[in-house]
Amino acid sequence: MPLARIDLRKGENANYRREVSRVVYEAMVSIGAPANDRFQVIAEHDAENFVYDPNYLGIARSDDLVIIQITWNEGRTTEQKKQLFKSIAKELAKAVGIRIEDVFVTRVDVKRENWSFGNGIAQYAT
Amino acid sequence: MPLARIDLRKGENANYRREVSRVVYEAMVSIGAPANDRFQVIAEHDAENFVYDPNYLGIARSDDLVIIQITWNEGRTTEQKKQLFKSIAKELAKAVGIRIEDVFVTRVDVKRENWSFGNGIAQYAT
Amino acid sequence: MPLARIDLRKGENANYRREVSRVVYEAMVSIGAPANDRFQVIAEHDAENFVYDPNYLGIARSDDLVIIQITWNEGRTTEQKKQLFKSIAKELAKAVGIRIEDVFVTRVDVKRENWSFGNGIAQYAT
Repeated sequence: MPLARIDLRKGENANYRREVSRVVYEAMVSIGAPANDRFQVIAEHDAENFVYDPNYLGIARSDDLVIIQITWNEGRTTEQKKQLFKSIAKELAKAVGIRIEDVFVTRVDVKRENWSFGNGIAQYAT
Repeated sequence: MPLARIDLRKGENANYRREVSRVVYEAMVSIGAPANDRFQVIAEHDAENFVYDPNYLGIARSDDLVIIQITWNEGRTTEQKKQLFKSIAKELAKAVGIRIEDVFVTRVDVKRENWSFGNGIAQYAT
Repeated sequence: MPLARIDLRKGENANYRREVSRVVYEAMVSIGAPANDRFQVIAEHDAENFVYDPNYLGIARSDDLVIIQITWNEGRTTEQKKQLFKSIAKELAKAVGIRIEDVFVTRVDVKRENWSFGNGIAQYAT
């Protein structure tokens, strides 16, 4: 049930973006998303359209920053959310060498009946 | 009070996108959005930036997939949400021939005081 | 803790967009966001991908419309939200001459544990 929006600077090749996509998906599965529940939109930006503070909270960010916003069902625990953030950062470092300082993630929680995966039906409504 | 984000693959002409926009708007009005409350942002993506599972939940999706994310006031019933999904899928098929399998919709619910439609005023705050 | 998405028509120069970014950031700080908490994604659109009603609620909008969607922690009062809308509209007029009718703002409220600003850690989780 997640939809992930991934924003980054222009200039990375398709393979890099495919790897980012894979890592975000696998991190979601690792905390309980169903296998194959993979829906993501990636947008690439010019410098002046991708704005970040290079030191907020004492974290040194660079132009390699990736901003990941995941809309997901409510009900995950804080522990699961922490695990998600940790997994994305760790695995992005491994897969494409993004520094963990450059991984920004935020979640938007919604209700189960707020999704239609096709066919005009709310598949998760009770 | 809705804002709709519509994401799809590059390659459809302006008329197609205008029709998608119209259908999404009319479906919202059909479940109670005010007439003329039409605010939408459409983004077109290259293949590697538009990621979807071609079979999640047994629904056969294609590159014609449209991902529609609607931010809207909380308070709609599950029945209204079901009606919204159904209407969008059915009418997109009619208008531009999108298969109902290729219509992905999700809602984000927010509070009434969370909107300013202009003039720096929260028009729906009580 | 905010993430702002700013959508507008193509055709404005980089300085204009930098000023919009600055004003949105400063308005957030003015109602209590921490200094340097500045994360924003700006997207520019062709006419048919940027859809707005030119008169909804009797507000006369033009192609200069800016749609600003801010994801932020829940807990702000309605008064603070009103102040935010007012400040963005007023200061955009001053900075780049956008008419207050052309400033559309909406907020999405999320929980404090829903953010990671880097390092794979949920910095605001309690």
